[in-house]
Amino acid sequence: MTQVSESDVLGVGLVGTSFMGRVHTQAWTLAPRAFDLALTPRVVAVAGQNPERTAAFAARHDIARASSDWRDLLDDPHVDVIDICVPGDLHAGIAEAALAAGKHVLCEKPLSNSLAEAESMVAAARSAREHGIQSMVGYSYRFVPALAHARELVRTGRLGKIRHVRAQYLQDWIVAEDFPLVWRLDRERAGSGALGDLGAHIVDAATFVTGHRLIGVSALTETFVTERPLPAESGALAATAGTGRGPVTVDDAAVFIGRTDGGALATFEATRFASGRKNAMRLEVNGSLGSISFDFENPNELWFHDHTVDESEAGFRRIHVTEPSHPFAGAWWPAGHGLGYDHAFVHEVVEFTRAIADRRTPDPSFEDGLAVQRVLDAVERSAAGQARWVPLDPRESDL
Amino acid sequence: MTQVSESDVLGVGLVGTSFMGRVHTQAWTLAPRAFDLALTPRVVAVAGQNPERTAAFAARHDIARASSDWRDLLDDPHVDVIDICVPGDLHAGIAEAALAAGKHVLCEKPLSNSLAEAESMVAAARSAREHGIQSMVGYSYRFVPALAHARELVRTGRLGKIRHVRAQYLQDWIVAEDFPLVWRLDRERAGSGALGDLGAHIVDAATFVTGHRLIGVSALTETFVTERPLPAESGALAATAGTGRGPVTVDDAAVFIGRTDGGALATFEATRFASGRKNAMRLEVNGSLGSISFDFENPNELWFHDHTVDESEAGFRRIHVTEPSHPFAGAWWPAGHGLGYDHAFVHEVVEFTRAIADRRTPDPSFEDGLAVQRVLDAVERSAAGQARWVPLDPRESDL
Amino acid sequence: MTQVSESDVLGVGLVGTSFMGRVHTQAWTLAPRAFDLALTPRVVAVAGQNPERTAAFAARHDIARASSDWRDLLDDPHVDVIDICVPGDLHAGIAEAALAAGKHVLCEKPLSNSLAEAESMVAAARSAREHGIQSMVGYSYRFVPALAHARELVRTGRLGKIRHVRAQYLQDWIVAEDFPLVWRLDRERAGSGALGDLGAHIVDAATFVTGHRLIGVSALTETFVTERPLPAESGALAATAGTGRGPVTVDDAAVFIGRTDGGALATFEATRFASGRKNAMRLEVNGSLGSISFDFENPNELWFHDHTVDESEAGFRRIHVTEPSHPFAGAWWPAGHGLGYDHAFVHEVVEFTRAIADRRTPDPSFEDGLAVQRVLDAVERSAAGQARWVPLDPRESDL
Amino acid sequence: MTQVSESDVLGVGLVGTSFMGRVHTQAWTLAPRAFDLALTPRVVAVAGQNPERTAAFAARHDIARASSDWRDLLDDPHVDVIDICVPGDLHAGIAEAALAAGKHVLCEKPLSNSLAEAESMVAAARSAREHGIQSMVGYSYRFVPALAHARELVRTGRLGKIRHVRAQYLQDWIVAEDFPLVWRLDRERAGSGALGDLGAHIVDAATFVTGHRLIGVSALTETFVTERPLPAESGALAATAGTGRGPVTVDDAAVFIGRTDGGALATFEATRFASGRKNAMRLEVNGSLGSISFDFENPNELWFHDHTVDESEAGFRRIHVTEPSHPFAGAWWPAGHGLGYDHAFVHEVVEFTRAIADRRTPDPSFEDGLAVQRVLDAVERSAAGQARWVPLDPRESDL
Repeated sequence: MTQVSESDVLGVGLVGTSFMGRVHTQAWTLAPRAFDLALTPRVVAVAGQNPERTAAFAARHDIARASSDWRDLLDDPHVDVIDICVPGDLHAGIAEAALAAGKHVLCEKPLSNSLAEAESMVAAARSAREHGIQSMVGYSYRFVPALAHARELVRTGRLGKIRHVRAQYLQDWIVAEDFPLVWRLDRERAGSGALGDLGAHIVDAATFVTGHRLIGVSALTETFVTERPLPAESGALAATAGTGRGPVTVDDAAVFIGRTDGGALATFEATRFASGRKNAMRLEVNGSLGSISFDFENPNELWFHDHTVDESEAGFRRIHVTEPSHPFAGAWWPAGHGLGYDHAFVHEVVEFTRAIADRRTPDPSFEDGLAVQRVLDAVERSAAGQARWVPLDPRESDL
Repeated sequence: MTQVSESDVLGVGLVGTSFMGRVHTQAWTLAPRAFDLALTPRVVAVAGQNPERTAAFAARHDIARASSDWRDLLDDPHVDVIDICVPGDLHAGIAEAALAAGKHVLCEKPLSNSLAEAESMVAAARSAREHGIQSMVGYSYRFVPALAHARELVRTGRLGKIRHVRAQYLQDWIVAEDFPLVWRLDRERAGSGALGDLGAHIVDAATFVTGHRLIGVSALTETFVTERPLPAESGALAATAGTGRGPVTVDDAAVFIGRTDGGALATFEATRFASGRKNAMRLEVNGSLGSISFDFENPNELWFHDHTVDESEAGFRRIHVTEPSHPFAGAWWPAGHGLGYDHAFVHEVVEFTRAIADRRTPDPSFEDGLAVQRVLDAVERSAAGQARWVPLDPRESDL
Repeated sequence: MTQVSESDVLGVGLVGTSFMGRVHTQAWTLAPRAFDLALTPRVVAVAGQNPERTAAFAARHDIARASSDWRDLLDDPHVDVIDICVPGDLHAGIAEAALAAGKHVLCEKPLSNSLAEAESMVAAARSAREHGIQSMVGYSYRFVPALAHARELVRTGRLGKIRHVRAQYLQDWIVAEDFPLVWRLDRERAGSGALGDLGAHIVDAATFVTGHRLIGVSALTETFVTERPLPAESGALAATAGTGRGPVTVDDAAVFIGRTDGGALATFEATRFASGRKNAMRLEVNGSLGSISFDFENPNELWFHDHTVDESEAGFRRIHVTEPSHPFAGAWWPAGHGLGYDHAFVHEVVEFTRAIADRRTPDPSFEDGLAVQRVLDAVERSAAGQARWVPLDPRESDL
Repeated sequence: MTQVSESDVLGVGLVGTSFMGRVHTQAWTLAPRAFDLALTPRVVAVAGQNPERTAAFAARHDIARASSDWRDLLDDPHVDVIDICVPGDLHAGIAEAALAAGKHVLCEKPLSNSLAEAESMVAAARSAREHGIQSMVGYSYRFVPALAHARELVRTGRLGKIRHVRAQYLQDWIVAEDFPLVWRLDRERAGSGALGDLGAHIVDAATFVTGHRLIGVSALTETFVTERPLPAESGALAATAGTGRGPVTVDDAAVFIGRTDGGALATFEATRFASGRKNAMRLEVNGSLGSISFDFENPNELWFHDHTVDESEAGFRRIHVTEPSHPFAGAWWPAGHGLGYDHAFVHEVVEFTRAIADRRTPDPSFEDGLAVQRVLDAVERSAAGQARWVPLDPRESDL
C-alpha cells in the first residue's frame, strides 16, 4: 500500500458554529474532494462564544483547535483565511482585524448592519488587497448552477434587452405569532429583518444575473407582529419560547420597485410571512429575445424561454442544470442527479480558494457586498419616507 | 313529437364585434343552456362600426338584427340589455345613454378611460338603479371558478389574517418592436396600456378575493418601445404593419406596491413585455392560517396551503376546481374536465341575468368598476411623480 | 337594420340527453360560430328514453323536436346526421339503422361493446360510404389542440424514431366502496369498465399521435370492489345509492404492455381508482430526436423536448397550445387564453361537418374505431389468460 | 485552545473509485458530521484496478492507504467495513470473501448479476450475521427523505388499501446511437441493462414504500440499438468512442406489469431511451384513502393527496420534505433548503453504521437485495417467453 501525502494546505479559521458555520465547514471539507484546487483548504481552527459547544463542533468536524475568542484565530500561523459566520453586528470588527492581521476574509452576507460599516470594510479590503490579501462576501446563490447558467444566458445575449427583473424571497418561519424573539428579529444583531436576510440575496442575485444595477427604489416595509415571547435559548431559526415578551425591532417583510441602469423595471419582495413558502428564492428576467425563471424550491431547474423560436414550438423549457457543460455541475454527478442547498457553498469556497491561489479578487467581492448594502440602505430610507423615491448611483460602488 | 316553446326572453343588444363581442355572444348563447335561469337571454341585435362585418357577425351568431349605429339598439323594444364591448373611450357615452333609455348595461372593463367618466357613469348607474335598471362591469376573472373558490376560502377564514397580496398579469404580445400601433397602444382609445388592460383585472381580482382595498400606492410605469409602425388595419391583438410610424402613447408596463385597509402589503405588476408569458394572470395571497395561489395559464387549478396542517403533511395543494361543490363548476362537466377562458364569461352573464331577474345589483357593479378606476388613477399619478406615495380612501367608492 | 338569413343547414338528430348528449349539443351550437363551415349544423331533433327529460333538454337547448324513440329521427327529413350519445350496447343498432336510412352517423366511443358488433358497424359504414354517407367515431382527444400539435411534431420528424409510448388515463370517481352501481359498471350496458371508457381513449390517442399500431399486448385487469349498492337513479357519473346491492361486472382498472409496428415499447394504464387524479389522460412519447408529454389535467399545455438542442439549453418546454398557428386554436381567443374540455368536441363536429361537405371520410372513421376495438378485445383476452401475449395484426383494420 | 480528540472509529475499506466510489466516500465523510453516531466511520483504505487512479483518489479523499487489490483490504486490521462499489460481476466474490474475513459489507445494488449469486450471498450474509457481522445492499432511494416519508404515510394508514403502484425510471444517456459500448451495456459486467440498473431501484422502492411484494409479472424488454462503437476508455456514464464496434448485450428498456400480495396492480418501466428525462425515478401509489407521487427530478418534493379531505379542498399537495419532523431532514438545514442526490447516501451509511453499532441487521439487507433479484430474474424469464406470466412467491425471500 502507498502512503498518501497532502498537497499545499490553505488553513481556514472559522468564526461561528451555528447554521452557517456548519454549512461552511462542510463546504471547505468537500471543495478539494470535488474540485481540482491548487490549494487544499482545511478548517484548522474554530471560534465560538460557548466553549463546550465550540469544542463539540470541533470534535464533530475534525477541526484541530477550538477557542471561545475569535482573536485567537488571528494569531494562529496555520490560519490563512478567516471565515465569518456570525451575526452582522460582528462582521466589521472581525473582518477588519483579520485583514489587518494579513488573513484572507470570507464574510457572510449581508456584509454589515450599516452602510457606514460596509464602506469601512471595503476600505479595509482595498488596503489588504494591495498586499495580496483577498476578501469575499458570501452571496451563495451566485453559486447555484441554475443561476450561474442564467447569468451566462444573459451574458451571451440570449435574453436580448432586459425589460423586467422580478425577484422574490418568500419564507414562512415566523408566521406563528408566538414564535420567539430570536436574534434575527433584533435590529442590534441582525441590522434588519427580511430585508437584510432575504432581500439582500435577491438584490445581489438580480445584479449577478442581469448585470443591471438599480438607479432608484421606492419601498414599503412592515412588521406584522410587533411583540414576541423571549426565547428560552436563541438559535437562528428554531427556538423555543421562554418567559416574558419583547419588541420585534426589524421588518417582517419588505417590498420595493425600482429602475435599473439598463432600462428595466424591477420588483422585489422579501418576507418571512408567506405561509407555505419555505425558501422560495425566485428570480424571473424578461428580455426582448427571451426570459429566464428560477425558484430555489426546485434549485436544479432553470426555466428558459427562447423568444426567437417559432411560436408554435416556443415555451418555457425546464433545463435540469446538471449537465457537464453547466457551471459547477461537471464536478459532481451524472445529469439529472441534482444538487442540494449546501453544494452552492462548496462552489463558493472553491471560488475563494482559487482567487487566493490566483492572487485575484474573488467574485463577489466586498465591493459587491457594499453595492447590495447601498440598496438596502436606500430601501430603508424610502420605506421610512412612505415609499418616497430614493435614487442610487450605481457608479458609487465602483469607486 | 312535441313542439318546444320558449321561456321569457331577455333581449341583449351587443355593441362591438371584435374579440370581446364574440366572447360575450358565446356567453349569452351558452348561459341558458348550462344554467337554470328565470330569464333566457338572447342576443337579438348587434351594432358595429363596419356594416359588412357587423352583418357577417350577426349571420354567424344567429342574431336577428344588425346595425352600424349603437343608438339603434336603444330604440329597439326587444333589447333589454346593452352589452358594451368596444374600446374604453366609448364606454361612458354608450352606457349613460343606454341607462337613460332604460336598458340594463353590461360594460366591459376597465369601466372608463378616466376617473371623471367613471364617476359620471356611477352616478348614472345609481339613478337608473332606482328604476330597477341594473349595471355591471365585466371583470370576468371574478367568474373563474378557481378565483371564486379562493374568495370563499378567504371569506370562511381559512387564510386567517392576510399579510401579502401578490398579483401579476404578464403577457408578451408586443415584445417585437415592429408590432404595429394598434388601438390598445393609443391613449385616446384605450386610456392606458398594460395598466388599464391588465392591471385593472388584478386590482379587481385582489379586492374580490381578499376583500381588502388599497389605501395607497407607489408606482412606476414604462413605455419600452416608444414608436411603432402604423397598422395596415387595426385589430385588437393581431395586426399587420402598414406604412409610416407613430408614437406609443400608453404604458407598456406598470409596477406598483401598496398597503391595504386590512394591514397587508400588496405588489402588482402588469406588463406586455414578459416574453414567454402568454396570459399569466396570477394572484397569491398569504395569510396567517393559509395561502392561495393562482395562475390563469392553468385556469382550473387553485393552489391552497393550509398552514394549520401539521408541517410534515403541509404543502400547497393543487385543487382542480371542477368539483360539483365548486363555484359554477357543477353546471358543467364531471370533475377533472376543465373549463376554458370563455366559460368565465358565461358565469358573468349568468350573474347579470340573475341580478336582473332578482332586481338586485349585480356583482361587480359600476361602483366596483369605479373603485378599480381610482386605483388606476392613483397609479398614474404616482408614476408621474416618480413613485411618490398616493393615498387612497377606500370609502370613497362606497359613497 | 338588416334581416339576417341563414346558410345551408345540416340537420342533426341527437340520440341521448346525458353528459355526452349535452357536450355534443353545445359543440354543434358553437361550431358554426367559431369556424367557417360550408354547411351550418343545427340540432333539430333529440331522442331520449324519458319523455319529460327529453322535452326539457330540447327546450333548454333550443331543439325543435323531441321524441322518446330514436327511430323517429330516422324518419325526419330535416335530420341529416344521427349523433349517438347513449351507452355502447345501443351503438350498433342505431348506427346501422341510421346508415341504412341514409343518415350520416357520429357515434360516441368506444364504437361498440364487442368486436363482432364493431366489425358489423364497419361493414355498414363501408356500404353507406359508397352512397356518400359518412360515419365517424367520437375519439374527442384527437381534437385537443395539444395532442393534434403533438401529432404534427411526430409527423414532421421532430421526434425521430419512436422508442416509447407511455399512456395513462387515471380517474378516481369510484374509489369510495359505496359509490353506486351505475350503468358504466354494468357489462351489459358498458361492455367493459375503465378499459373501454378510458383505455379506449389512450389507445386511440397513442395511435393518432405516433402513427404506430400495436402488434401485441399483455394485460391485467382488476375489479377492486366487486359489489356495490344499487343506484337510486342511474346517471353516468354522479348517482345516489338506493336499496340493495349488485355485482360489478366490469373492470375497475386495466394495465397492459405491448409492442408497436414501429418498434416501440408501449405501456397503458386505465383506472378509476387513482385517488386524486380527476381526469389525468396522459401521453408521453420518447423518440430519438425528441419527446412529447401531455396531461389533460392541464389540457392547453404540450411539453416538448427537442433532443437536438445543445444539452446546456435543452429541456421539456411548456408550449401553451393557443397560438394562431396551432391546430384549431386560431379559431378561438388570443394566445394564452386556454380552451376547456368541451372545445375539443366543437373541433370534432367541425371535422365531421367538413367531411360531409367535402364528401370524404372523416377522421377518425369507424375503421379507426374498430382498430381500437381490436386492441380492447386483445386486452380482455390477454387478461383472461393471465397476461398471456395476444398478437394483433395492424393490417386487419385496414382491410 | 483545546486539542480535539476522536471517538471510536469504524474503518471503511472502499472497493471501486468510479462514480459510486466517490459518492460513498463523500457519504462516509459527512455522516458523522451531520448525524450523531456511536461509531465514527472513516474511509481508511481504498482499492481500485488502476494504481495511479487509485492513489490519486486516495490523496484527494484523504484516505490513508491505496491498493490495486481489494484482497489487501481484507487483511487490513483497520478495516471494519468493506464497501463494494464495482460492477455486479464482482459483487459476490468480494462480498463473500469479506464476510468470511469478518468484515461488515455494504454492497452496491443490484446485489448481483444472477439469482444464484444472490442466493449464495444471502447464505453468506446469514452465516456472518450469527457472528455479529452485518451486510447491507445499497438501495439508496430508500434514504431519500421524500420516499421515506411516503413509506411513513403508507405505514400509518394514510393511503388506505393500496390499489395501484406505478413506477418508472427514465433516463436518456444512450439515446444517441453512437454512444459507446461502456461496461453498463455489457451483460458480462452489468448483468442486465436498464432492468438491473434502474428497474432494480424502482422494484425496491415500490416494496419499501408500500410493503407489498409482487406475486407475478409479465414483461417485455428491448434493445433498440444493438451495436455500438467500442469505447476509447470505459467509464460508467461518460465515455468517448474508440475504433471498432461491438454488440450491446443488455436491454435498453424493460416494461412490466404485475400483481402484488396486497391486491394491487403494478406497472414498471425502466429505460435509458426517454429523451429529455435525465433521472426521472418516479413512484406513484394510489390507495383508497389517499395517494403519493414522487419524481426524483424534484427530489425534495413528495406529492400527497388525502382522499378524506372534502373534495372542495382536496388535491395533491406538494410537501417540501425538509421539515425537522421529516425522515433524516432534521439533521441538515432549515425547511425549504433542499438536499441533493448525494445526501441519500449519507443517510444510507448512517443506517449501516448504526446497525453495526446496535448489532442489528441493517435495512435494506441482503435478503431485500435478493427479493429484488427474484423480480429481475422473473422479468427476464417473462420477457424471454414473450411476456408470459411468471409467478413469484414473496415468502421465498423471507426464508
